[in-house]
Amino acid sequence: MPVPRRVVLSGDHTTGPLHLGHYAGSLKARVALQHHADQVLLLADLQALTDNAGRHHKVAANVVEVALDYLAVGIDPALSTIVVQSQVPELAELTMLLMNLVTVSRLERNPTIKEEIRLRGFERDMPAGFLVYPVSQAADITAFQATVVPVGNDQLPMIEQTNELVRSFNASVGADVLVECAALLSSVPRLPGLDGKAKMSKSLGNAIALAASPDEIRAAVRSMYTDPKHLRVDEPGTVEGNVVFAFFDAFETDTGRVEQLKTHYRRGGLGDSKLKRELEDRLQSLMAPIRERRARFGDDRAAVLSMLAQGTRRGRERAASTLGAVKRALGLAYFA
Amino acid sequence: MPVPRRVVLSGDHTTGPLHLGHYAGSLKARVALQHHADQVLLLADLQALTDNAGRHHKVAANVVEVALDYLAVGIDPALSTIVVQSQVPELAELTMLLMNLVTVSRLERNPTIKEEIRLRGFERDMPAGFLVYPVSQAADITAFQATVVPVGNDQLPMIEQTNELVRSFNASVGADVLVECAALLSSVPRLPGLDGKAKMSKSLGNAIALAASPDEIRAAVRSMYTDPKHLRVDEPGTVEGNVVFAFFDAFETDTGRVEQLKTHYRRGGLGDSKLKRELEDRLQSLMAPIRERRARFGDDRAAVLSMLAQGTRRGRERAASTLGAVKRALGLAYFA
Repeated sequence: MPVPRRVVLSGDHTTGPLHLGHYAGSLKARVALQHHADQVLLLADLQALTDNAGRHHKVAANVVEVALDYLAVGIDPALSTIVVQSQVPELAELTMLLMNLVTVSRLERNPTIKEEIRLRGFERDMPAGFLVYPVSQAADITAFQATVVPVGNDQLPMIEQTNELVRSFNASVGADVLVECAALLSSVPRLPGLDGKAKMSKSLGNAIALAASPDEIRAAVRSMYTDPKHLRVDEPGTVEGNVVFAFFDAFETDTGRVEQLKTHYRRGGLGDSKLKRELEDRLQSLMAPIRERRARFGDDRAAVLSMLAQGTRRGRERAASTLGAVKRALGLAYFA
Repeated sequence: MPVPRRVVLSGDHTTGPLHLGHYAGSLKARVALQHHADQVLLLADLQALTDNAGRHHKVAANVVEVALDYLAVGIDPALSTIVVQSQVPELAELTMLLMNLVTVSRLERNPTIKEEIRLRGFERDMPAGFLVYPVSQAADITAFQATVVPVGNDQLPMIEQTNELVRSFNASVGADVLVECAALLSSVPRLPGLDGKAKMSKSLGNAIALAASPDEIRAAVRSMYTDPKHLRVDEPGTVEGNVVFAFFDAFETDTGRVEQLKTHYRRGGLGDSKLKRELEDRLQSLMAPIRERRARFGDDRAAVLSMLAQGTRRGRERAASTLGAVKRALGLAYFA
């Protein structure tokens, strides 16, 4: 009997082009995963709208930008199914049905949502779409029949919420219609921002975009936060919290070389400028082919849209099959 | 220039067959209205599920029952468009988009929702689907481009909420894509329950179903609450709060006869039994043709389903045209 292939769902809000933090945290792993799993990548424009009402032009425009980032890093549309969320009505329908199985207070207790509410200063004035966003996410996961969802630690409550909804739905119809999923926890530490802040983010202005030019890469590396107490080359420097070393850890495949640099820096005698030049070289050679591929794909946007339409069609077939089963189980397939 | 025809949307939750309260309060008016307006009648199975999770079989089974009630009272599918809500994915999609334009606290302040929450004892533990139910209603109204919505006084906040969403959406895209609606307030007083309670309701056991048999009608009239102080025929009786007279007001077209009976009852000398026999005659002759038509249509459920499929298809075309305009305005029509 063939072992069923894992179905992996991940994706991105389409609020801006992706950056090196995305590359280190998820894109690199997705490129590898697409050879071993049935991978669905969701361009989550609808979910992006839940906290971007009024900024729909930005959300819409970035669908193609994020798709270009995917293609640029090596996501292969023949191996991964890239789906545009807003073009799959079945996701909205499933969300509506699942929303009846969770209470408002349960959603408000979701630690991920609580944290996001805090970050956005929403308090009780959050958009309704934002409150039900975990339900929409559960609909995505279950519609595509995903069994594995790569997440960070902070997203574990979302997986829990999804599986609660799966169990609740299956119990209510007395059949295993929806499938539970497992979290695939990333072992990669989060890439810090250029300024040393915990998270690299375009809106914080501390990111290096995947499409960054050689000059932008150079300027970004030069601006990196290092060890503020490391004032003279011959003095010992601190590696922990030093952004340059976080980048070496993330992007230098020669780990021996990274250890060498760390030892030298700690001992003293390795200046920030020299260190940064070496990192810049590493990043320039990592990012040049990404930038070139991105520019090449970007020259033919019609082809990108056609690729997206095809992936979306494929994704929709699966979502429609799930929704069909859900509606039959609920007795809502009157005309079938 | 031709005056644009009014588009009227009304409908029912499919939680049970309809009763005389529905007939007096809305069905009769709809039968008249279908000759003068473009009338859409929504079998709201999705909305019924928002407070009937786990009772999906009941909700699904009653789609055909309510459709039979419509046909029985004289709704003509050639004049009215009867649409099954769950079969119009565009309604779910529009709901998701509108949900981003209203805050949780605004929804909680909706007086209709507040009252419904109180009635159901939901408090903070209401299903998320129930909280966003006014948004789903706004999606229904706007998707079908309804300009007029018949409501009771207690439903006015729903219309207000809908128009708020319309204005908010149109402002956010800078174009008049969605259309505001006006409430059509009913002048018909609400038919009380057999027991004298303000509302006739199947779940309260104080209703006469439209499909009631002659025996059920007889028993129902006999059980009607009258004037508890009217113990002897020759004593004066009270007309106010007397369910029998509420029914005469609702269903006796000869208003002179009703006035005669009221005067006689108030003066004394008119016994409850005699009065009820006359009401029973009136109801039997009103309901016999309804029951017969209902039975005839019920003999061919396949034909009813095919009629519903056709109405739903027609309704879907209009909803799809609205959703198309909405998505274009948001920039979400990537593949169009």
